[in-house]
Amino acid sequence: MTYCCGILVRDGLVMIADTRTNAGLDNISTFRKLHIFERPGERVMMLATAGNLSVSQGAVNLLVEGLENPDTHEVETLMKAPGMLQAAQLVGRAVRRSHAIAGESGEAAGVSFDVSLLFGGQIAGGALRLFMIYTAGNFIECTQDTPYLQIGEHKYGKPILDRAVGYDTDVLDALKIGLISMDSTIRSNLSVGLPIDIALLRRDALRADISTRVDGGDAYFRDLRDSWSRALRAAHMAIPTPPYDGRAG
Amino acid sequence: MTYCCGILVRDGLVMIADTRTNAGLDNISTFRKLHIFERPGERVMMLATAGNLSVSQGAVNLLVEGLENPDTHEVETLMKAPGMLQAAQLVGRAVRRSHAIAGESGEAAGVSFDVSLLFGGQIAGGALRLFMIYTAGNFIECTQDTPYLQIGEHKYGKPILDRAVGYDTDVLDALKIGLISMDSTIRSNLSVGLPIDIALLRRDALRADISTRVDGGDAYFRDLRDSWSRALRAAHMAIPTPPYDGRAG
Repeated sequence: MTYCCGILVRDGLVMIADTRTNAGLDNISTFRKLHIFERPGERVMMLATAGNLSVSQGAVNLLVEGLENPDTHEVETLMKAPGMLQAAQLVGRAVRRSHAIAGESGEAAGVSFDVSLLFGGQIAGGALRLFMIYTAGNFIECTQDTPYLQIGEHKYGKPILDRAVGYDTDVLDALKIGLISMDSTIRSNLSVGLPIDIALLRRDALRADISTRVDGGDAYFRDLRDSWSRALRAAHMAIPTPPYDGRAG
Repeated sequence: MTYCCGILVRDGLVMIADTRTNAGLDNISTFRKLHIFERPGERVMMLATAGNLSVSQGAVNLLVEGLENPDTHEVETLMKAPGMLQAAQLVGRAVRRSHAIAGESGEAAGVSFDVSLLFGGQIAGGALRLFMIYTAGNFIECTQDTPYLQIGEHKYGKPILDRAVGYDTDVLDALKIGLISMDSTIRSNLSVGLPIDIALLRRDALRADISTRVDGGDAYFRDLRDSWSRALRAAHMAIPTPPYDGRAG
């Protein structure tokens, strides 16, 4: 399993991805699922993947090596895409192509080849955008109403996002809330695990401000986990005892 | 969908269930999913159900009307069960019987007839126990290590239980935490909804201390939702800003 979330606020974009991959419970590994494509000053694009690893890695390879456009016969790569929308469409085509290759040979085995991806970033002259891309290559775009998207094991980490993130949230606060969301998921689902990759891109910076890996020994993340647990305990202890003594119903 | 949780602490047992039932998104109704079987001073048993409503209602009917024991040919009901273990076994048989009836005629329609149930309580002379019962009639029992069980849409409400509930938690605090867990679920999943039924049974009381319904107008629950949202916001705001400025990895 996997958990990734992308948060798009006024000031910028945050992407967070865990690194645990498993083929059954007895085969657990660490794989990078957050990929950054960057030419500082011109473009920064971030791609987080969930689902079948061979399909998502295949798609990433196609995005780097290039994918022929069936109409123009031009070979397109992420680094050549003229805008984020065209780049998202290219990611969609790469996913479809990669899925078709795996699907042909393997669907009889009863394995799921589904993937989902978060793709966000900015190209000079265009807007900072965030998309969620499905196996069929179709996608949706993040809007101000709900300024985040999630893929993989999204449920445990959703309540804090629903409550704490708005479009006007500071981008560093968005990163902090994303880390809390990741912590909730890691705590409740064994198949989501440390280390986690994080990236932060400020609007119009055209250069990733943060791109790093956080592991179990990271002092800030350890403090965040402890503070959050303590705060939750304090929060529920501060709520008065239920007054119910009725026996109606 | 449904969300129910049962919390078994040293002092007693809490059961909480929502009431939303849906057959598709365009057919949403309110149905009671928390059933109490009580003869004060002798026994209190609580049953919460999730999954196919016809199967779970059928099982409840069998438990009330009586189910013939294939070995002894005696007709058994919940109110006659000699102990909680035998009662749980009876619930398992009732679920299996109810599922078989529905399954015979309907499985071709591609409908899921799966159910899951929480069943807890105490019979004079025996211990206070809590079980989770599956469609096949098999069951597991709640232990002190993880003093709660959940059925239905369990993920959104699990992080707070994982962090806040222990076997030594006061039973009224357990109810409060259960309500927070329910609130998180209602907020993130439209198919879980108010009103909610709650019941609280203190160990050896042999009489439900609380058995009532909480709806949107309930002042305590409204305050709990507001306080919790405020506390979560305060909690994440109290955590320092992430210090990362690295670009490693």
